[in-house]
Amino acid sequence: MRRLSELGEFGLLAELERRGLASGQDAEGAVLEGGIVVTQDVLVEGVHFRFEWTSCRDLGYKAAAVNLSDLAAMAAEPVGLLIGLAVPPETGDAAIVELYEGIAEAGVPVLGGDTTAARAFSVSVTAVGRSERVPGRAGARPGDALVVTGPLGGAAAGLYALEQGLEGFDELVERHRRPPFRLEEGRRLGPVAHALIDLSDGIFSDAARIAARSSCRLTIDVESVPRAARLEEVAELLFWTMGEDYELLAAVAPEDATALGLPVVGRVEDGAGVEPDLPARWDAFRR
Amino acid sequence: MRRLSELGEFGLLAELERRGLASGQDAEGAVLEGGIVVTQDVLVEGVHFRFEWTSCRDLGYKAAAVNLSDLAAMAAEPVGLLIGLAVPPETGDAAIVELYEGIAEAGVPVLGGDTTAARAFSVSVTAVGRSERVPGRAGARPGDALVVTGPLGGAAAGLYALEQGLEGFDELVERHRRPPFRLEEGRRLGPVAHALIDLSDGIFSDAARIAARSSCRLTIDVESVPRAARLEEVAELLFWTMGEDYELLAAVAPEDATALGLPVVGRVEDGAGVEPDLPARWDAFRR
Repeated sequence: MRRLSELGEFGLLAELERRGLASGQDAEGAVLEGGIVVTQDVLVEGVHFRFEWTSCRDLGYKAAAVNLSDLAAMAAEPVGLLIGLAVPPETGDAAIVELYEGIAEAGVPVLGGDTTAARAFSVSVTAVGRSERVPGRAGARPGDALVVTGPLGGAAAGLYALEQGLEGFDELVERHRRPPFRLEEGRRLGPVAHALIDLSDGIFSDAARIAARSSCRLTIDVESVPRAARLEEVAELLFWTMGEDYELLAAVAPEDATALGLPVVGRVEDGAGVEPDLPARWDAFRR
Repeated sequence: MRRLSELGEFGLLAELERRGLASGQDAEGAVLEGGIVVTQDVLVEGVHFRFEWTSCRDLGYKAAAVNLSDLAAMAAEPVGLLIGLAVPPETGDAAIVELYEGIAEAGVPVLGGDTTAARAFSVSVTAVGRSERVPGRAGARPGDALVVTGPLGGAAAGLYALEQGLEGFDELVERHRRPPFRLEEGRRLGPVAHALIDLSDGIFSDAARIAARSSCRLTIDVESVPRAARLEEVAELLFWTMGEDYELLAAVAPEDATALGLPVVGRVEDGAGVEPDLPARWDAFRR
């Protein structure tokens, strides 16, 4: 028996798929007839957020944003959200109303939901959307350029600033609390992207999903990755490799990368896995 | 400020709807164009199940069944499930595989999902289906008959038997562990029902939702409610009023009740709320 902490989510889902118990590794959610797409994500207190650093309103906003990021990665237009709350019974109604106000800021209608009692607070969101074409993760091909929709590392650095009690990094903290909406970028990438994913786990982890599904190697050109402003002031050079930025990463034909005007951060090659392309002066960081 | 434990889920959702922050009180889930319906439910360890009494396989089955019950109440054909697991990091992969095997017994494809670390174990399921007509909760009218699709009380009595360590009530315990699928009954009710709901909270609570939405009074003919076999042997007369049976309750024209061959358990009248219709010898139980 392996524990989930060793196997990881990626390994677990591969195992379930091998046994025919689950599918859906090719995109952020389910793709149904008629272009309907459905995604689901859960935020759990103590794992994905802590109330000392996150207001109920921010939590609602983030729960919506994380799911809308999945829709963006499926090049979808949002239709609506279903909200499942698990809350300790002593929670006040004002907290729940605030949470829903945060969700409402995302501008997508709440179509229904469910609230149950629990020891820990968690927010489970199902997002429904409509997409003309879901690029998925399996279509990247050698010669493609990798592009991203925005700077990376802000969310991880913001969380670090909160944890360390560092003052004056409000913009980074805001990136942690309030991920960006990339729905428009997703819809622009939809018709042309060979593969499209949102960066929830970090550029290397998420690129690995495309590499595995597309049977290619993805090489990340380390120096060309755009980084959040003032990242290096928070001290950790490698925040940009970490998760929760909710920018999009796409594999596109080089001419489409130019047409889209998005920064190129790497390339797709024959092979397998993800490789950092590091200039010689980064030798100290090589594995 | 009211605590959620005082306000209740019903009160909370009414409050959110009043503020324009959520809708969806008219059915078990969201109804989209093209007859696509989407529902979401969360089962939380210590609230909805305990591992001392529930195997991982049973939990998977129940998580699927609870959501398929929502689809049944929307008169829908299942399309697929999305699974969101929150699991303590020390959980073994065998447990997760077992859980997915239980889900697979429901015979509905798993289209995707998400697994995250958490302190408490929870299973969040999104079910997607397709329905020709969702009766909803708002269409019951005076003169309608109330019908149910099966006997009530088994799930609550089975749980009680587990809690009290009573032996020999396997069939009742099974009703707690493995709720029935009423998808076929739901599809038969779909074209004719004026209102349709699944009995997750208990016949009085769930009938109250129809009463509130339809602006009618629902009268339950207490002696005609079919009860699970051997209910009275487990000691508590009122188990049939409790939740988790996942049978369907519908308001239909009296002639349709006859045509469907389902037991009539009450009627819809002018007025508001839910009233038990008790013969004189039940006077001791009157409120």
